[in-house]
Amino acid sequence: MLIAMHVPEIIAKKRDGGALSSDEIAFFIDGYTRGTIPDYQAAALLMAIYLRGMDTAETAALTAEMARSGQQLDLSEFPGALDKHSTGGVGDKTSLIVVPILAAAGVPVCKMSGRGLGHTGGTLDKLEAIRGFSVERSTEQMLAQVRAIGACIVGQTATLAPADKKLYALRDATATVACLPLIVSSILSKKLAGGAPAFLFDVKVGSGALMKTEAEAVALAEALVAGSVANGRRATALVTDMSQPLGRTIGNALEVQEASALLANPAQAEPRLRELCLVLAAHGIALAQGVALEEGRRRAQSALESGAARRVWEALVATQGGESKTPLPQALHIEPIVATEVGYLQRIDTQALGELVVRLGGGRVRKEDAIDPSVGLELFIKVGEPVALGQTLARVHARDAEAAQAAQAEVIAALEIGRSLVRVPTLVLDCIN
Amino acid sequence: MLIAMHVPEIIAKKRDGGALSSDEIAFFIDGYTRGTIPDYQAAALLMAIYLRGMDTAETAALTAEMARSGQQLDLSEFPGALDKHSTGGVGDKTSLIVVPILAAAGVPVCKMSGRGLGHTGGTLDKLEAIRGFSVERSTEQMLAQVRAIGACIVGQTATLAPADKKLYALRDATATVACLPLIVSSILSKKLAGGAPAFLFDVKVGSGALMKTEAEAVALAEALVAGSVANGRRATALVTDMSQPLGRTIGNALEVQEASALLANPAQAEPRLRELCLVLAAHGIALAQGVALEEGRRRAQSALESGAARRVWEALVATQGGESKTPLPQALHIEPIVATEVGYLQRIDTQALGELVVRLGGGRVRKEDAIDPSVGLELFIKVGEPVALGQTLARVHARDAEAAQAAQAEVIAALEIGRSLVRVPTLVLDCIN
Repeated sequence: MLIAMHVPEIIAKKRDGGALSSDEIAFFIDGYTRGTIPDYQAAALLMAIYLRGMDTAETAALTAEMARSGQQLDLSEFPGALDKHSTGGVGDKTSLIVVPILAAAGVPVCKMSGRGLGHTGGTLDKLEAIRGFSVERSTEQMLAQVRAIGACIVGQTATLAPADKKLYALRDATATVACLPLIVSSILSKKLAGGAPAFLFDVKVGSGALMKTEAEAVALAEALVAGSVANGRRATALVTDMSQPLGRTIGNALEVQEASALLANPAQAEPRLRELCLVLAAHGIALAQGVALEEGRRRAQSALESGAARRVWEALVATQGGESKTPLPQALHIEPIVATEVGYLQRIDTQALGELVVRLGGGRVRKEDAIDPSVGLELFIKVGEPVALGQTLARVHARDAEAAQAAQAEVIAALEIGRSLVRVPTLVLDCIN
Repeated sequence: MLIAMHVPEIIAKKRDGGALSSDEIAFFIDGYTRGTIPDYQAAALLMAIYLRGMDTAETAALTAEMARSGQQLDLSEFPGALDKHSTGGVGDKTSLIVVPILAAAGVPVCKMSGRGLGHTGGTLDKLEAIRGFSVERSTEQMLAQVRAIGACIVGQTATLAPADKKLYALRDATATVACLPLIVSSILSKKLAGGAPAFLFDVKVGSGALMKTEAEAVALAEALVAGSVANGRRATALVTDMSQPLGRTIGNALEVQEASALLANPAQAEPRLRELCLVLAAHGIALAQGVALEEGRRRAQSALESGAARRVWEALVATQGGESKTPLPQALHIEPIVATEVGYLQRIDTQALGELVVRLGGGRVRKEDAIDPSVGLELFIKVGEPVALGQTLARVHARDAEAAQAAQAEVIAALEIGRSLVRVPTLVLDCIN
């Protein structure tokens, strides 16, 4: 039962730095979702929250109300289930690898993902590079698939956290995006509604991530774990490096190819990507199965090396309609990029590479943009590695020669080569649980 | 020529405490007035302005753009004209008296007034208590009347500062009313569009005013003068006492009666009201005619005492259709309120008395409410005066016996009688010019 409240008084309370009660937050989110509270009052409250903040209890209540604003999945038949979320990075295909590892190790994963917007890709877009793959499944289909093979990766249902959909669009238009309690409630409300009892968060930090500094990333990781616990879920958050693209590829089909190859033949995979997937899976297993991290690591490694994770992946693709025998789409123009100076790779402007792939047609600037799954970038060098004259640093996959040509200069500009010896960036910077 | 700008960037600049350029302000106000910028973006900007403030240059630019958003009156044929504005008080009928004094002293006044909302009355509502009086005049009618008799008091035209109309309604709904640059731009944009070269502001302070402390009132007075000067106008602002109702009456017909009686027979008027009107007129004449304040005072006094101001008032009423021979509406139930204790009047909850008259039917809670001009309150005692047992302190004018009865207790509660000797509140606290 919600008591009628005077909306400007709720706004004024936050405006003056007060803490909103859970009743006030419930009244606001309920009214906003149903349309009885207009966008302009929500916009004023968002700006007041941006400038005045929210404490942990307020953030938790906001998250819970946003989760309650729509359908909530009932995963009670999977008490050991886990959900995984990455804040998004360039070349981040870890979900395609970690979900099969988790399922193969006996951790059910019913994962609802988003699409890519801006310089970071989206898991759904990657999966759709596979001909026939469907990310739209009914609740019954999702649950049946998790029962059968232990995992599914699907799109968010239309009725998942509608308050978040409305608020997210409003934040974008009102300069209230970069605000911790609003970021936390947006991410976490969808996870809560997704129904898993435990969450694994991968908070990315660096030139390719939304969080540019470790301090920001740690604050987000801590807030995500605190918000999960306040809402009766268990959670672990890792803060991981996004100062360079993950693995060797950026672009939807290229990333599916890389993920699939890693699962089939882990020994030949790019080592940092493989290590990150194993670390994530180890933490996920430890959290979901209540075992020590070392045991989680052992189980993850065994699931990967035995081929069990590969078999889950193949079953997941097949169950969701994917034609794994049909080759992935290939770009017509593939151009190598060759080093014209010697030294060491100092740093990568990872966001610039992500934006380049968007411009090649591999991502979206606006929600309604179509995606070309074939385009992208292969990158054969990591920060700290030596560069020899004439070495192939990368390969651009483009729709035409002109685009490939233009991309070459941009890749060169994004790779800073110098004489200094460079420390290899730490892969996992923090772990909060 | 306005350059297209990215609205969230303008909001973000203010959100982060930056000063908006006049181009940015012009782009925003123009887009908001035309409807290409939606309410929710304006709401976010208003909250950012509320919490981050605006400097004098920003406030002046905002004011100018709001004035430019609609029709602007051309008063260039009256170079010595003055406009007067009160921030609103309980029983504030000074415009009905000061405008005729100014006109009689040779200062043309083409005044556009507002209606009352909440506990403070509005000049238009008071004038409409006179049968036949019309506040709706065309621009041609207004100018002709000022040429003929030196003064008119009319309603704001529909096309006066439309940006202010939209923003004012939005501020009310988004808890962004009590914000100095927004208050200043709202008041001053309408004055600028009204076309006078000089403004006289009466900023009220005390229990019956919007500004409850002298510091707030002085800040508003200073900002009004600074904003006027920045927009090429001359201005004087007085900060005057509103710790008790002005004069002896609250309520539309009662106030017209009191104003009219003061003009006809100043010697018998309530002395604080008469003094305030003379001080306001003196400052207005000094400002408009470029004479010393003492000379302004002399001219004001002569205009009042010679009957010239009364003749302007009668001409104004007649020209605007008022039937001065028809008696003003009278309430059916008039109940005296008698003192049941002795002492001195310590203080008055003036806002409570204003709200009481609204509840009697004499004011509006919502814009669309109808007004009963006959109801109100006569108050025969001022703060600091002695109270004798059985003395008639006030008289309630109500529609029925029940309302009159209920009002009595409220009036008693609003008048605090005690044993201490009380200092008479200073009438004029500050003068800024």
